[in-house]
Amino acid sequence: MLKLYYAPGTCALASHIALAESGARYETVRLDFATSDQRKPEYLKLNPKGRVPLLMTERGALSETPAILAFVAQSFPAAKLAPLDDPFAFARVQAFNAYLCATVHVAHAHRLRGYRWADDPAAIEAMKRAVPRSVGECFDLVEREMFEGPWVMGEAYTICDPYLFTVACWLEGDGLDSARFPKVADHRRRMALRPAVATVLAEEGASR
Amino acid sequence: MLKLYYAPGTCALASHIALAESGARYETVRLDFATSDQRKPEYLKLNPKGRVPLLMTERGALSETPAILAFVAQSFPAAKLAPLDDPFAFARVQAFNAYLCATVHVAHAHRLRGYRWADDPAAIEAMKRAVPRSVGECFDLVEREMFEGPWVMGEAYTICDPYLFTVACWLEGDGLDSARFPKVADHRRRMALRPAVATVLAEEGASR
Repeated sequence: MLKLYYAPGTCALASHIALAESGARYETVRLDFATSDQRKPEYLKLNPKGRVPLLMTERGALSETPAILAFVAQSFPAAKLAPLDDPFAFARVQAFNAYLCATVHVAHAHRLRGYRWADDPAAIEAMKRAVPRSVGECFDLVEREMFEGPWVMGEAYTICDPYLFTVACWLEGDGLDSARFPKVADHRRRMALRPAVATVLAEEGASR
Repeated sequence: MLKLYYAPGTCALASHIALAESGARYETVRLDFATSDQRKPEYLKLNPKGRVPLLMTERGALSETPAILAFVAQSFPAAKLAPLDDPFAFARVQAFNAYLCATVHVAHAHRLRGYRWADDPAAIEAMKRAVPRSVGECFDLVEREMFEGPWVMGEAYTICDPYLFTVACWLEGDGLDSARFPKVADHRRRMALRPAVATVLAEEGASR
């Protein structure tokens, strides 16, 4: 059976929701970042990156949210979580998710993980101060140019939706008012009403 | 016909090589970052992110290297640039490329693009100083855990290879000695000998 390693409040939520929407049989393993579970030798054996999500399959481990999301969509095609038979449409899904992964999530990560990119405490504090500006610019672009509606890619719900929901849940923590991004905020409200999302949020014990 | 917008020395090289290897008919448009071509209104109309690569197709524009690479592999299956019929193997390809995009490239970007994540000049200088450490950690992981050999994913040449080649070409500029990563350095040498790669490097006018 598929096994998802996650920690609450992280981007692993996107993979967790996609699994719940897919109809897959899966189980979860919760890591506690407060006690640095992700840095313990037994976890580093599974994922030397020391991060979540990690999806353990019968054939081995998969990391990286965009890769896991596409894997879930391709492995459970009946759930129609991506336009699998249309390389261009699939690429647009992937481009959206790559932007969330490499630009939006990265901007957000400068609030709590600045030590990755500087060793000087003052620089790490300066990164924190810039997060509302940098994350805000990302969501301005999503709101203005990328979100088609009613779902990210238009009429069809795809693996872009749980990922956008996940990073949009970080807005207030990053010092931004979600009202500045009305389409994103409305999407977040509608996502939370989906049964699969509600179930996952309850399991992760998140209060949003 | 496909049209690739690129700038020399950027990650667009990966998409450029993949197109050359795919057998696709394509043309290229060279942007000059020195004169900020990527910020000009006519380009922002095509790509509001103001970045490269951008692949213009008959159906519209695609951005984000991992998405473009998968699109090229799926659109030209005869070139066998990815294990298209095996969702797990395809996900491993995608996971590798997501790591290059969201972790390795991001670490590298702190050398010249620190202004994205801080407004304080001292912090931006501190980011530059940390690049050899952060990029070095990334390549240590690629070398030790991720590179299978002789190509990234093992016996089969895939869309991971031009992308690894592209970011490995930045090592010396990032203050690292490629000899520290023997598998990556050997891969880079072998990549440069491939006819498609040599052709693309000549076109981009890169001296490496």
